[in-house]
Amino acid sequence: MEYSREIELKGHIIDSGIMTQVFDAIMEMGGNFEITVFEIGKKKQDESYARILVSTEDETLLTEILSVLHRLGARPPVIEDVTLAKAEADRVVPKGFYSTTNHPTLVKYGDEWVRVEAIEMDCLIVVLPAENRALCTPMSKLKTGDWVVMGDTGVRVEPPQRPREVGTFEFMHGTVSSERPSETVIRQIAQEMRDLKARGGKIGIVGGPAIIHTRAAPALAEIIREGFVDVLFAGNALATHDIEYNLFGTSLGMNLDTGTLARGGHKNHIYAISEVIRAGSIRDAVDQGVIKKGIMYECIKNDVPFVLAGSIRDDGPLPDVITDVMVAQDKMREYLQDIDMVIMIGTLLHSVAVGNCLPSYVKTICVDINPASVTKLMDRGTMQAIGVVSDAGTFLPMLAKYLHD
Amino acid sequence: MEYSREIELKGHIIDSGIMTQVFDAIMEMGGNFEITVFEIGKKKQDESYARILVSTEDETLLTEILSVLHRLGARPPVIEDVTLAKAEADRVVPKGFYSTTNHPTLVKYGDEWVRVEAIEMDCLIVVLPAENRALCTPMSKLKTGDWVVMGDTGVRVEPPQRPREVGTFEFMHGTVSSERPSETVIRQIAQEMRDLKARGGKIGIVGGPAIIHTRAAPALAEIIREGFVDVLFAGNALATHDIEYNLFGTSLGMNLDTGTLARGGHKNHIYAISEVIRAGSIRDAVDQGVIKKGIMYECIKNDVPFVLAGSIRDDGPLPDVITDVMVAQDKMREYLQDIDMVIMIGTLLHSVAVGNCLPSYVKTICVDINPASVTKLMDRGTMQAIGVVSDAGTFLPMLAKYLHD
Amino acid sequence: MEYSREIELKGHIIDSGIMTQVFDAIMEMGGNFEITVFEIGKKKQDESYARILVSTEDETLLTEILSVLHRLGARPPVIEDVTLAKAEADRVVPKGFYSTTNHPTLVKYGDEWVRVEAIEMDCLIVVLPAENRALCTPMSKLKTGDWVVMGDTGVRVEPPQRPREVGTFEFMHGTVSSERPSETVIRQIAQEMRDLKARGGKIGIVGGPAIIHTRAAPALAEIIREGFVDVLFAGNALATHDIEYNLFGTSLGMNLDTGTLARGGHKNHIYAISEVIRAGSIRDAVDQGVIKKGIMYECIKNDVPFVLAGSIRDDGPLPDVITDVMVAQDKMREYLQDIDMVIMIGTLLHSVAVGNCLPSYVKTICVDINPASVTKLMDRGTMQAIGVVSDAGTFLPMLAKYLHD
Amino acid sequence: MEYSREIELKGHIIDSGIMTQVFDAIMEMGGNFEITVFEIGKKKQDESYARILVSTEDETLLTEILSVLHRLGARPPVIEDVTLAKAEADRVVPKGFYSTTNHPTLVKYGDEWVRVEAIEMDCLIVVLPAENRALCTPMSKLKTGDWVVMGDTGVRVEPPQRPREVGTFEFMHGTVSSERPSETVIRQIAQEMRDLKARGGKIGIVGGPAIIHTRAAPALAEIIREGFVDVLFAGNALATHDIEYNLFGTSLGMNLDTGTLARGGHKNHIYAISEVIRAGSIRDAVDQGVIKKGIMYECIKNDVPFVLAGSIRDDGPLPDVITDVMVAQDKMREYLQDIDMVIMIGTLLHSVAVGNCLPSYVKTICVDINPASVTKLMDRGTMQAIGVVSDAGTFLPMLAKYLHD
Repeated sequence: MEYSREIELKGHIIDSGIMTQVFDAIMEMGGNFEITVFEIGKKKQDESYARILVSTEDETLLTEILSVLHRLGARPPVIEDVTLAKAEADRVVPKGFYSTTNHPTLVKYGDEWVRVEAIEMDCLIVVLPAENRALCTPMSKLKTGDWVVMGDTGVRVEPPQRPREVGTFEFMHGTVSSERPSETVIRQIAQEMRDLKARGGKIGIVGGPAIIHTRAAPALAEIIREGFVDVLFAGNALATHDIEYNLFGTSLGMNLDTGTLARGGHKNHIYAISEVIRAGSIRDAVDQGVIKKGIMYECIKNDVPFVLAGSIRDDGPLPDVITDVMVAQDKMREYLQDIDMVIMIGTLLHSVAVGNCLPSYVKTICVDINPASVTKLMDRGTMQAIGVVSDAGTFLPMLAKYLHD
Repeated sequence: MEYSREIELKGHIIDSGIMTQVFDAIMEMGGNFEITVFEIGKKKQDESYARILVSTEDETLLTEILSVLHRLGARPPVIEDVTLAKAEADRVVPKGFYSTTNHPTLVKYGDEWVRVEAIEMDCLIVVLPAENRALCTPMSKLKTGDWVVMGDTGVRVEPPQRPREVGTFEFMHGTVSSERPSETVIRQIAQEMRDLKARGGKIGIVGGPAIIHTRAAPALAEIIREGFVDVLFAGNALATHDIEYNLFGTSLGMNLDTGTLARGGHKNHIYAISEVIRAGSIRDAVDQGVIKKGIMYECIKNDVPFVLAGSIRDDGPLPDVITDVMVAQDKMREYLQDIDMVIMIGTLLHSVAVGNCLPSYVKTICVDINPASVTKLMDRGTMQAIGVVSDAGTFLPMLAKYLHD
Repeated sequence: MEYSREIELKGHIIDSGIMTQVFDAIMEMGGNFEITVFEIGKKKQDESYARILVSTEDETLLTEILSVLHRLGARPPVIEDVTLAKAEADRVVPKGFYSTTNHPTLVKYGDEWVRVEAIEMDCLIVVLPAENRALCTPMSKLKTGDWVVMGDTGVRVEPPQRPREVGTFEFMHGTVSSERPSETVIRQIAQEMRDLKARGGKIGIVGGPAIIHTRAAPALAEIIREGFVDVLFAGNALATHDIEYNLFGTSLGMNLDTGTLARGGHKNHIYAISEVIRAGSIRDAVDQGVIKKGIMYECIKNDVPFVLAGSIRDDGPLPDVITDVMVAQDKMREYLQDIDMVIMIGTLLHSVAVGNCLPSYVKTICVDINPASVTKLMDRGTMQAIGVVSDAGTFLPMLAKYLHD
Repeated sequence: MEYSREIELKGHIIDSGIMTQVFDAIMEMGGNFEITVFEIGKKKQDESYARILVSTEDETLLTEILSVLHRLGARPPVIEDVTLAKAEADRVVPKGFYSTTNHPTLVKYGDEWVRVEAIEMDCLIVVLPAENRALCTPMSKLKTGDWVVMGDTGVRVEPPQRPREVGTFEFMHGTVSSERPSETVIRQIAQEMRDLKARGGKIGIVGGPAIIHTRAAPALAEIIREGFVDVLFAGNALATHDIEYNLFGTSLGMNLDTGTLARGGHKNHIYAISEVIRAGSIRDAVDQGVIKKGIMYECIKNDVPFVLAGSIRDDGPLPDVITDVMVAQDKMREYLQDIDMVIMIGTLLHSVAVGNCLPSYVKTICVDINPASVTKLMDRGTMQAIGVVSDAGTFLPMLAKYLHD
């Protein structure tokens, strides 16, 4: 007895590697296939079209294979409306729910294709029938009675296709190496940033305290002042040490301009936090003239919003830090809705958190001294990620320089 | 014009390297010294005694040098009572407050030496005059009107001294290398754990999700079941993937027993969380027979408390996760009060957080595949830390084996 | 004006990713294409066939694109004989020479397809007209008057195709992570080794001194004794410390069974070398009963050949070490001719050297604690490489155990 | 029964940490001690003097402890002449030979103190009685009949003492971290280099091919042109890719100015080597105008000698490469005799090789992206080593800039 089902694929499915992944998946999972229609895009700009009959000896396996192919953009030739189920309790997911990818996604509902809003991976899709809307919903926000999309039926995924023209992101994507021409890479990232800003795009920075410890804060402050940053995602440590450096010249007690441990410097970060608490908030401390320069100062002065998310290793923390991580996550999501590029520097925790909430089409640049961190961040099923193994303390000053030139 | 002050040092100050650090500090900071008394411990068991006249050309510098020497255990020959100041507002530290080390500390108050409770580094000391108590207090818990210890006067620090007999912790301490005899090191750690349990000591585990991904969970579950663990510090990821593995055989969708990606496995961790939410809590899920084995199961069954601290990259999270990081930090502190050894495996975030709250005399073992993480964790001014650069997936099964033998 | 040329591709070109790479290359280099024929392999076992017209506006560019496609297995529909040129001097390559890939390669000469012997990458092909042979020749061995293959004409490359059935090497290939189920991976490697030996295959080990320092030597010695190793590639350090350990219980002076520094142990490796020099060679030292166990002992006793290649950081060296690196390289090549699998452990230098000489169809397993080393070794244009980020000191004992089971 | 012996120590033995190490060693090895005389240097500039009676219950142990203490500079109050033994065969060391440290060393012979020439660690001392000379001799150069120093008797080691004033090397030494102010550190290294050159000192560079791949070659070429480099230690890869870059703009086929793979670029390094072979040597290629810029060009033009040492992974190699590693090692030794500072960048192999041949008083700066490499290189029993975890591609341009300023 054999079970089979036909699916179709459309687009630049060969050079985007999608056909390769489809065949891979079927064979790895133990299925068979027959290609029933194959119209190859003859020229560079042409799209291809394939129809494939997938077959197995086991019905469950067939469903499983189709579910994997679905995530690669495969769909049945005729598409029905999505199946919905009601959430029985807050945060309890219905068995068989559809789990999102980070690619643009549509659902067919009432015979119409509705784009899923705020797509990110590993979430549910909740349909609002009255409003004809579909919302990408993390399980933490699922409410009793929500209408949840079940299975793959009626869901269409649009994985990123290889662009016809090649830019910085395309030729570098996928490799992580410390053996690339650093200055050339930095110059090209600067160019991408300038191009994107010229087009009115939005750039987010995710930064760790290594930016301060390596004394790259003046460079980042300059980049913010010059208008290249639209939002900053960081934690208590980056903000605290930035303020510490600007109040006392130290970071974790080390005088950054001499490289020596400052006398009594171990107390400076506590004083920095305390001064901000006394003022009320970072904005208040800037307004009152307590903080006079630095990353946080430039954010306030240039109206660049920031999300400071708390972590269990925080001292203090600063009054601006959101100590509830789920609240912080939501705040991050707000600012990520219309972002075009994210540059992640020297923080695995915040970078993974931001990366989880990003659609696959957002350009991502990951800079870290540890190649394993870069590798981990790169793996987002996208052609829009560049990994740079470098030192924040030399990378950012050079980036600032090339943003000028 | 010259400013000078005499200090004294007592104990195994030469072989513990304290004299070296004292001279280092004075010279690095630009001071002078004259040794007025030096009685060397003639034999192995004898303590030494030194009296040193520190002098500078600048009064501030003298204070700064003395403050550094103070942290090494130096003290004036005659000690006055501590100076106290009132905290003017919640979380606002008085200028000139005394900032703690992680070494055992006493304050002289009402002419008596009072031991500071719950010592950890980078905190303030609050004196409760009525109760004759002194509390180590993170700035986040400072309240208006608290009596805060100011400056070094009346404070005595007792840095760890080199033990006369050499154990595992002594001969290995301080070095981080992947080129040590792994099995020998693991055998000795097992021996230390057994000795410590035989003496009634308490062991905490700090663990990251790599324990699950590398399939070391069965080994850790066994170690818990056999009574070697008194408390577990982890995050949502470790608990979620542990439960995912035990419900579905996968971790982040990878079948850990075959190393292949499970079909539809990407949803498993969401189901795992959802099932626990449905049950109410991890304990409820165990009681209801939903979770039948694994790390969390053994914790519940053997009454081993756990603290699951939230982070911004959490999916879900599980209902047992404390999403407010300051609340989680406090919970961690509770369980660290009487701990004797902490083993940190595969998590920089939780390990740093726990490490920050530990007194210097607690034995610490840091295991990570990344030598930079191990180095970072080791630097706690203690002779009680061992760094092991190894793979959780092979380390824990071998440790479990040697705990049996 | 447009320049164009037709090429054809045959085989499992879609699921092996070859079509994707072909389109990628054309577009990245700025060419155009039109697909003139495309017969897709309808079922899993069927091969596909494509004919593609590549066009550019620049003749040089066309040649360059075709040269890249050639390396992916593309060829003109009609193939002429290779073009040959005479080498004008020893080690001086003719301009326009054909540079080899590490894939199986054939040249058309005298209207016949001749397989290139001893293929490895970055070499020349020298044709021996009288013998109808073609030899892959490193530039160091090129002699005046040798007939060198020029350009791509008449050369056919056979890149590896995705196997229809999936084994350990296929599902793991390409990813480097420390977050995989270690024991499961090791069990599968053991299985692959046993299967390969059962089929009469040959396994080579490339090992660094970390094997000894982490005390994995007894495990490797056992693996050799049990017949799993056909040749050992190493340097002076591995052999010296192996012998040091077996004579004195130390490696670089550290007692591996206690983890402590042995008294006077810093001289042991010098003594070890000296004793072997006194005996004459490692074989002599084994025959005379000086060396009684260990890796080198088992090699001698089980007639496993070894190549000890010198490096500039060598002490001694042992008399068996080949101090001229070009001679050592040739010796390595000899033993690599009919090897089926190579396991590289804890040495970047020797692993890269061996990897450079390997055809792409040889299975390769790279084990290192440093993910950057593993990544570097993995990138060989092959589906036959597995990277394992682990600790030699726990990996090898576990591998030995699973080879028994 | 107790065995005992008196030793004495002199110098800045407390703040240099020597007393700490002496007591550590005795206790770790299970001995006892009694301090018979202790005169502490009362002021900063004063030296201390200690006399210690070491005792054990076992005669062998006593000898072993004394041998360890000897390496820390301890010596018997009365010193006899060295004991000599004749080497029985080439490269066969006499049992009980004295193995050198990398500290300045003197031997007492004919009642006179003779300084050991060309000191480096893990060697023998050969005395030439007729010439009243003592030579540090690697075992590879030991000849039948050489007079070899046996045991510690008559040997005096002078371990480095903590300088009274603190410079860059002192305050940074010993720590390896990627979290230091990069630009500040680089500025200070530049200052040290300028100071050293102003005093007529000599600087050596040890460099790996990452310098070329990260496009730092123009910066290093400039540093050489400006006279900061006295000798270059490298391998075939650095020289080949430097020449490749200067002939073709690529390194391993990557166009370093665009970051893209050059068409046909994989052959460029072979061509580069071939062109040099055709010319005769690197000097010939420069003289004939083949090579017109770059690191090797500047070495030739500015008469900076270089040692290119072969390794088994070499392609080619260039005619200037010394393929016999023992010959290369000797050549390196020649140039290291009067060097004052060595900067090691991006190569573990060559850095360890050079480091092994260096006396402990030579200042060493290790720059690598991998903290584990830096840690390994730092551990030379010296206060004269700085580790920098950074990216060659950003480090060298910044260093060049600060050498100008």
